[in-house]
Amino acid sequence: MAADFTVHPVGRVASPLRDAAAAPKQGDEGAPPAWLIFDSEYAGALADVRPGAEMLLLTWLDRADRGVREVRPRDDPGRPLTGVFSTRSADRPNPIGLHRVTIAEIDGVRLRVTALEALDGTPILDLKPVLDPATDR
Amino acid sequence: MAADFTVHPVGRVASPLRDAAAAPKQGDEGAPPAWLIFDSEYAGALADVRPGAEMLLLTWLDRADRGVREVRPRDDPGRPLTGVFSTRSADRPNPIGLHRVTIAEIDGVRLRVTALEALDGTPILDLKPVLDPATDR
Repeated sequence: MAADFTVHPVGRVASPLRDAAAAPKQGDEGAPPAWLIFDSEYAGALADVRPGAEMLLLTWLDRADRGVREVRPRDDPGRPLTGVFSTRSADRPNPIGLHRVTIAEIDGVRLRVTALEALDGTPILDLKPVLDPATDR
Repeated sequence: MAADFTVHPVGRVASPLRDAAAAPKQGDEGAPPAWLIFDSEYAGALADVRPGAEMLLLTWLDRADRGVREVRPRDDPGRPLTGVFSTRSADRPNPIGLHRVTIAEIDGVRLRVTALEALDGTPILDLKPVLDPATDR
């Protein structure tokens, strides 16, 4: 039996999006700007983030159903049931969201991003640089 | 104070790589093939994964130091200390590894990938499709 691990959020998303059903499914599908509000203890970890950077944001999709194994992609009843590891469904065993974001503005430990589909209050787990600007999402 | 969450591994990496110091830092830097061995309860979640697919593997880098906030990128003493959110260092608050992999072979709940820099025994958290084959890593 595999051991569990504990993730500790390093911040939260502040966004006008509050309703999962109404939110865009991906950031490039009309998502609004959002703020990433980090806890002050992570100021050092953030110190080299620059405006204009394309980054990968990892979140904990805290409203997900972790027991789901198959979904109809994009909630489309016309599509067949599909194993969740072949989808970007939030409902999955470990609901970690992966979002490509562009840093628009930095105000201390608050980062504004140009478009993000995550809901208001979503916990932030990690932020990583894109390895190749042409090839990450 | 943010609430913690629990991740439960869905499988483990089987790889000839056993020494972090000797392992390549990214999968495209000479990493060997590896097997992703999922727990049988995730067979349904895996059912639509196909050989040849490019996917994003999320792991828990269980040998990381979670207290680190700044590192010298690529362990190069000539490079300046850099906040970990601007690096791909394994040492970070929530050590979630993000790996782009190509599925080479499927044997039940065991998936062979062509190249992976994760160490033997690394816990697997998630597997996601690449949204755009040209733009994920």
